[in-house]
Amino acid sequence: MQIAMIQDKILPVEELEPVYLDRGIFFGDGVYEVVRSYDGKIFALDEHMQRFANSLTAIGIVGVDIDQIRCRVRKASDAAGISNAKIYFHITRGSALRNHVCNADLEPIFFLTVTELEDDSEANTKGIAVSTHPDWRWKRCEIKSLNLLANVLARQEAVQKGCDEAILVDEEGFITEGASSAFFAIFGQTLQTTELTANILPSITRKYVIRAGTNIGLEIMEKSLTSQQASGADELLIASTTNGITPVVRFDEKLIGDGNPGKYTTLLIQEFRSFTA
Amino acid sequence: MQIAMIQDKILPVEELEPVYLDRGIFFGDGVYEVVRSYDGKIFALDEHMQRFANSLTAIGIVGVDIDQIRCRVRKASDAAGISNAKIYFHITRGSALRNHVCNADLEPIFFLTVTELEDDSEANTKGIAVSTHPDWRWKRCEIKSLNLLANVLARQEAVQKGCDEAILVDEEGFITEGASSAFFAIFGQTLQTTELTANILPSITRKYVIRAGTNIGLEIMEKSLTSQQASGADELLIASTTNGITPVVRFDEKLIGDGNPGKYTTLLIQEFRSFTA
Repeated sequence: MQIAMIQDKILPVEELEPVYLDRGIFFGDGVYEVVRSYDGKIFALDEHMQRFANSLTAIGIVGVDIDQIRCRVRKASDAAGISNAKIYFHITRGSALRNHVCNADLEPIFFLTVTELEDDSEANTKGIAVSTHPDWRWKRCEIKSLNLLANVLARQEAVQKGCDEAILVDEEGFITEGASSAFFAIFGQTLQTTELTANILPSITRKYVIRAGTNIGLEIMEKSLTSQQASGADELLIASTTNGITPVVRFDEKLIGDGNPGKYTTLLIQEFRSFTA
Repeated sequence: MQIAMIQDKILPVEELEPVYLDRGIFFGDGVYEVVRSYDGKIFALDEHMQRFANSLTAIGIVGVDIDQIRCRVRKASDAAGISNAKIYFHITRGSALRNHVCNADLEPIFFLTVTELEDDSEANTKGIAVSTHPDWRWKRCEIKSLNLLANVLARQEAVQKGCDEAILVDEEGFITEGASSAFFAIFGQTLQTTELTANILPSITRKYVIRAGTNIGLEIMEKSLTSQQASGADELLIASTTNGITPVVRFDEKLIGDGNPGKYTTLLIQEFRSFTA
């Protein structure tokens, strides 16, 4: 008899809930998105849905009705009734006995949570510390997949060092991005961030930070920089869907500027806020 | 109210079964092993348990009693009563609302299946075809983690091309290993395989294939080779826990030898069988 075991409990494989055989858990065989609402309104939902569709296509999960997923996201957001919410959702290729190769007729599995956002006002006011970590991720980081162990390990080490985010550095010494954020440096009146052709996620918040930078009169340079260059920047910041723009005031052991959020970062936060209002 | 949604069904987060919040699915934050039994006897269990312990340590999952896990594996194997079984098990860091960084007090989750092995006698007699695929995996492939999307995508492409396994090739053009197997080439009387210091899994079956090679009088060379070199080999083979040694008779478009399993491969299969008897 084919059997399964969960902790100490043995049961026939046939009695397993399908979620135990989710390819998401066996292989990380799925993709995800995170959107957030500001005062009840989901920010940049269409762009997130487009990226989600791209991720699904990239790993060959077919037959997902993106409009239906968009409706589910809205329905769940309405049902939760949280005005500033974080909405996470993923789709995995389906549930089946573990085998790298699976039948094409598996039904994709959709899962979503709507949770309250943590208060990030202190991080925005005071800024955060970040630490560098080797970028151990795979070579397809433009896909927002469930293979996130490298990100988890980098973030955990950062927290152990008393930092809030890990900044990933590739084998040539160039910064790619944060473990769960885009990374920016300001030199004079230039806002610099890794080019999209590098092995990074096409971050939607990154796009809006660049737009905010243009709006406040900064030059934009899309070119990756080394840790050493970053530690000598006038200002540093990270950006993510969940937290918007967060000033970075310490980079590894180096204090950035006078250790307080810089003037352009503060202007960027204000400008970004106008997009989400 | 914080809510979750599974397909079309909305429910409060508090009512979710813990498995839906398994860090295995959110991040692939776990490690696994596969062992198999031959005539009711699990092969190389101690070595697999040692590697499993190493993987747990590498990703910082602590407090797992390896002896208890070994007992569970034996207990499940006995309960299934399948004489030639494939035993898969994983441990994830635990279940919690999604956050890269988690509390240290999460309880790790153990999951296992015992299933019947598919009949691989035809593959062993006739040999299989393999196709090359870029190695997109992360930089810590010595850890047997649940981040396996690169392996899945490579295998799927191989199957679409009518092949049975994908052989992964790094950016410098060197073969690392198969998507779920170790890879070997035979040139004259030399058995060649990627060195363990490369970004590959320390395959236990690989070790036994090398031992079998020594026993039948082959020279062993642990040095990675290019696709071009491999396609000119006298014999090729892959090896995995599940299938033991499998002859490779086609490499991309190139027929290997006369298209039948080679003489040393056949001898290696015989020798390997003596280890598992």
